[in-house]
Amino acid sequence: MKDTALHLRHLVKPGQKLHLKDVDPGDTAPYKHKDEVQELLADDKRDLVELQELLYAEGKHSVLVVLQAMDTAGKDATIQHVLSGVNPQGCPVTSFKVPTAEEIAHDYLWRVHQAVPGKRMLGVFNRSHYEDVLVVRVHNLVPKDVWSQRYAQINAFEKHLTENGVTILKFFLHISKDEQKKRLQARLDDPQKHWKFAVGDLKERALWDQYMEAYEDALNHTSTPWAPWYLIPANRKWYRNLTVARVIVETLRGFKMKWPEPADDLSGVVIED
Amino acid sequence: MKDTALHLRHLVKPGQKLHLKDVDPGDTAPYKHKDEVQELLADDKRDLVELQELLYAEGKHSVLVVLQAMDTAGKDATIQHVLSGVNPQGCPVTSFKVPTAEEIAHDYLWRVHQAVPGKRMLGVFNRSHYEDVLVVRVHNLVPKDVWSQRYAQINAFEKHLTENGVTILKFFLHISKDEQKKRLQARLDDPQKHWKFAVGDLKERALWDQYMEAYEDALNHTSTPWAPWYLIPANRKWYRNLTVARVIVETLRGFKMKWPEPADDLSGVVIED
Repeated sequence: MKDTALHLRHLVKPGQKLHLKDVDPGDTAPYKHKDEVQELLADDKRDLVELQELLYAEGKHSVLVVLQAMDTAGKDATIQHVLSGVNPQGCPVTSFKVPTAEEIAHDYLWRVHQAVPGKRMLGVFNRSHYEDVLVVRVHNLVPKDVWSQRYAQINAFEKHLTENGVTILKFFLHISKDEQKKRLQARLDDPQKHWKFAVGDLKERALWDQYMEAYEDALNHTSTPWAPWYLIPANRKWYRNLTVARVIVETLRGFKMKWPEPADDLSGVVIED
Repeated sequence: MKDTALHLRHLVKPGQKLHLKDVDPGDTAPYKHKDEVQELLADDKRDLVELQELLYAEGKHSVLVVLQAMDTAGKDATIQHVLSGVNPQGCPVTSFKVPTAEEIAHDYLWRVHQAVPGKRMLGVFNRSHYEDVLVVRVHNLVPKDVWSQRYAQINAFEKHLTENGVTILKFFLHISKDEQKKRLQARLDDPQKHWKFAVGDLKERALWDQYMEAYEDALNHTSTPWAPWYLIPANRKWYRNLTVARVIVETLRGFKMKWPEPADDLSGVVIED
């Protein structure tokens, strides 16, 4: 049965003081098993394809989906499962890697601003400017007085974007440390998945608690009325995919879009041979 | 029945002197009806999804699909039908519009070079640098001695790209002038399609013969051993989709890709709690 409030269930309410320890990454309420949601997810994906076509045609909105997560939590897989099927012409995906020399010579939002999706677009950030208060903080790449200013800077930047027609949907895909172990072990055990395994990822895993602290602060400081976070329990892949899809679908539906009028007066138009 | 040479059937052989008038845009040999190919197209799309995943994982190749066509011939629809299903993270699409002031201040390949897909990517150009020997020529935007030099410049540019790991697949989606009339009329008759109709498109239609001359010259001058053209009969949408999909699939298959080895030695790796 479709839970019509699913898209609101994992919203991080602005102003709320959230403790990540109180949040269960294995939560799948109101569903118990994958089989219950397969049809629901298929419905959402079909709706998403139709709504994205309308988003592209109408040309009034742009949507930015931000995906953040620890390794193996499923940033890539969410894109693959939720967004394959959508016309790639309307769905630019930007993966933010270690900054280049030119990027590092600029402020940290410089490269991010360039990648913001234009009108008609359902754009995705695979990692984002949030790394500048996460990995940068955990590894002490800049001093605390620098990264701690960034929450307000990010809020101001995102406010600017939303005031200029960009709708921002931010997802933290939340898995447990145990679940990450299982997934890393699975990559290690399957030769076809070996290429996804980098020994360096284990160093990040060792910093789990520091990352959770950084995520908690980021969620608490940057879940704003104009660009709230969704904290998605992601131990169960099917629940993660369903909730992310549902939030995007409900957001697009909320635009109440219409097929656009023609640019020209078409009465009396004759097409010559 | 699968025609295993379909991907070669519409190759414009380098050095060949092609006359567009001799080419039937309604050709669907070896098939007579849409129903014969639906399963074949579904197979190709499934193969394409798998091969694109491998292209992304292996990270050795990049592929550039160039789509050129008269209005209504199906550039957008080909992307939608053939490439929906592919992971958008590996499939950047660039639509080239009227150049901006900054673009026009540079040579015509400047903006094109920036949009060339990187390694791992199956990139698509919806229109391309070929407009600089098509619309630019037909509308006399630069003198003949300028545009006529561009064939050799484009060939040199594309040779450079292929020598540096980019595989280029160029498709001219070829419809008849009658078929375009039918499709424009259909847009005019259906209010939901009105927004696709721009009266300006009729001015381009009036220049049909000049465009065919420009396309014929472009195909003859720039179908090279390193970046040949495919002249796709496109009056039948199902045949257009099938042949484009097949060329891409056979190209990817020809790479004989393998799942990559891990970057690190994984023997003895233990994942701590």
